[in-house]
Amino acid sequence: MSRVYNFSAGPAAVPVDVLKKAQQEMLEWHDSGMSVMEMSHRGKDFISIAEKAEADVRELMNVPENYKVLFLQGGATTQFSMVPMNLLRGKDKTCYVNTGAWSKKAIKEAKIHSNVHISASSESTNFTTIPAVDSWDVDQNAAYLHYTSNETIGGVEFHSIPDVGDIDLVADMSSNILSREFDVSKFGVIYAGGQKNMGPSGIALTIVREDLIGNVKAGSPSMMDYKNHADAGSMFNTPATYSWYLMGLVFEWIKEQGGVSAIEAQNVRKAEKLYAAIDNSDFYANPVELTSRSRMNIPFTLANAELEGLFLSEAKSAGLVTLKGHRSVGGMRASIYNAMPEEGVDALISMMAEFERTKA
Amino acid sequence: MSRVYNFSAGPAAVPVDVLKKAQQEMLEWHDSGMSVMEMSHRGKDFISIAEKAEADVRELMNVPENYKVLFLQGGATTQFSMVPMNLLRGKDKTCYVNTGAWSKKAIKEAKIHSNVHISASSESTNFTTIPAVDSWDVDQNAAYLHYTSNETIGGVEFHSIPDVGDIDLVADMSSNILSREFDVSKFGVIYAGGQKNMGPSGIALTIVREDLIGNVKAGSPSMMDYKNHADAGSMFNTPATYSWYLMGLVFEWIKEQGGVSAIEAQNVRKAEKLYAAIDNSDFYANPVELTSRSRMNIPFTLANAELEGLFLSEAKSAGLVTLKGHRSVGGMRASIYNAMPEEGVDALISMMAEFERTKA
Repeated sequence: MSRVYNFSAGPAAVPVDVLKKAQQEMLEWHDSGMSVMEMSHRGKDFISIAEKAEADVRELMNVPENYKVLFLQGGATTQFSMVPMNLLRGKDKTCYVNTGAWSKKAIKEAKIHSNVHISASSESTNFTTIPAVDSWDVDQNAAYLHYTSNETIGGVEFHSIPDVGDIDLVADMSSNILSREFDVSKFGVIYAGGQKNMGPSGIALTIVREDLIGNVKAGSPSMMDYKNHADAGSMFNTPATYSWYLMGLVFEWIKEQGGVSAIEAQNVRKAEKLYAAIDNSDFYANPVELTSRSRMNIPFTLANAELEGLFLSEAKSAGLVTLKGHRSVGGMRASIYNAMPEEGVDALISMMAEFERTKA
Repeated sequence: MSRVYNFSAGPAAVPVDVLKKAQQEMLEWHDSGMSVMEMSHRGKDFISIAEKAEADVRELMNVPENYKVLFLQGGATTQFSMVPMNLLRGKDKTCYVNTGAWSKKAIKEAKIHSNVHISASSESTNFTTIPAVDSWDVDQNAAYLHYTSNETIGGVEFHSIPDVGDIDLVADMSSNILSREFDVSKFGVIYAGGQKNMGPSGIALTIVREDLIGNVKAGSPSMMDYKNHADAGSMFNTPATYSWYLMGLVFEWIKEQGGVSAIEAQNVRKAEKLYAAIDNSDFYANPVELTSRSRMNIPFTLANAELEGLFLSEAKSAGLVTLKGHRSVGGMRASIYNAMPEEGVDALISMMAEFERTKA
């Protein structure tokens, strides 16, 4: 078949221009005589690729000079551990906000290292809301407060950065980094797995304020210490070179689209039209409270759940794939990250309307 | 320029047929409509890729059924920590053999978690030998004995598996896995980073006997526990999917070459002819004791060190690159892993002879 519109929650669609560039350079990068994946990470060619990727993401996110940008292995799940192991600084207590499946995983991991205080939770609404920030119970003596800026399963998203006072703010931005503008200076640590808005899995981006580096818990493996990675320019061990290169191609592509503000405008448009199609139908429904809806992951149900299998097969015939919802929520889910073109969303909306008209 | 012969120690040359296959499938894998890097790791397409890679490496290495094969992130450096964190099983002491730079890194990391006893060391010969196994001081009450089966910097290699009695044997095979036959049943754990004989960096293969799984040290991050990865088929978190796929293509390529025994015969031939060229010259020299010489990494010096720069530039003109030796050893180093064709070694030998004839 030809290329489809892929609504996977992650690993997810990659911009086709990025894939074409990678394809073109696969056997030989520029005049190096070799593929990027064959290059020594200590050689000048790979160093130039690595440095350009860092410079581009610093420019795209307007990262202040007193923050390190790290390209690490092990995904967000490793960051779930590295955050408490590096940020406790002798304290015992941490604050977490629970907005769904990914928050819960971060909390579970933090409990291995700290006394976790849940500052707020939307469990009582079955994770269909973002708890109002003025209701949060933030212990200013905790080491930091952690939240998940977008939840891929529930489909909820923070639409502003919570003001939590003087405590260091940590965000898992795995599923909405680079999809909207963020003021990095408001955070102690930002981290994100690569496989949603930055390219392949197997590489994570961590942005950490310099004063938070150098305090790893005694007895931690060297790989868990931000300082080792920061001091070595993310080459404390052999980095995931090819994934780093692919991430750099995605950063270039975002710049070509006009940067994060232009991408954000596209994302607003894509999400608004899909939500409108759902809301204007009696057949489709999204359970999330209006102001908490995610621009990235849009779960929706069919009025008749018995038609789900037929919906998926009709969608696939129309070149629209990976729409099955997460088992814990059911129904459908359209993940529409940066790389999903507006035409893909339009095609989904058309197919949904046609399905409702003919099969509902 | 056209493709070169790349003698990098790692990341290193990848078989050109593997790169061509990856290039061809970059925009669309089979009839999936998407690149492998865009696939959900939970979907049937990626699962088929992952399972085939595991089946192929099990076949290639003749892995017994009571061993798990794990595809992990974080490279060998993360395994330096995971080995003691999982294998101590309440013990305090571990045994390590020190044959060079990589052994030392493993030892440094193990000291964070255990009382390391050095069973043998070749430091007194400046790491140009492998200590005779009958001289090793092995404490049978230690949790395990660890050695590095090939050292990329010193260029020494074990040519048989050491018999250490009943203690569990652990090997870092990063630089010679799949280059020669190993009897996996003699090991408790084998691990290797991907970027020398298996493809890209950013993925490590760990082969662990099942009875050694499930004993992680209390307080360890979940990502450091072999059990979590084993129970989830290496999908405890989102794996490095594209790197896993590339590794699978390398496994297919090795099978097409006739398997490990055929690759080993090639490797013996390649190494023997390069060592012969060095030994038969008064201009080039290799410092390693004859029976300890590596088939993978061949360091050599020039009688006149002032000619090193000229040698490297003449080599580059001949399409032979990344030959500069590690700074700690100096001189040159030719890394000739599985993916280096015999013609590449022949081209290097010709260039060396011509250089000696005209410039020495």
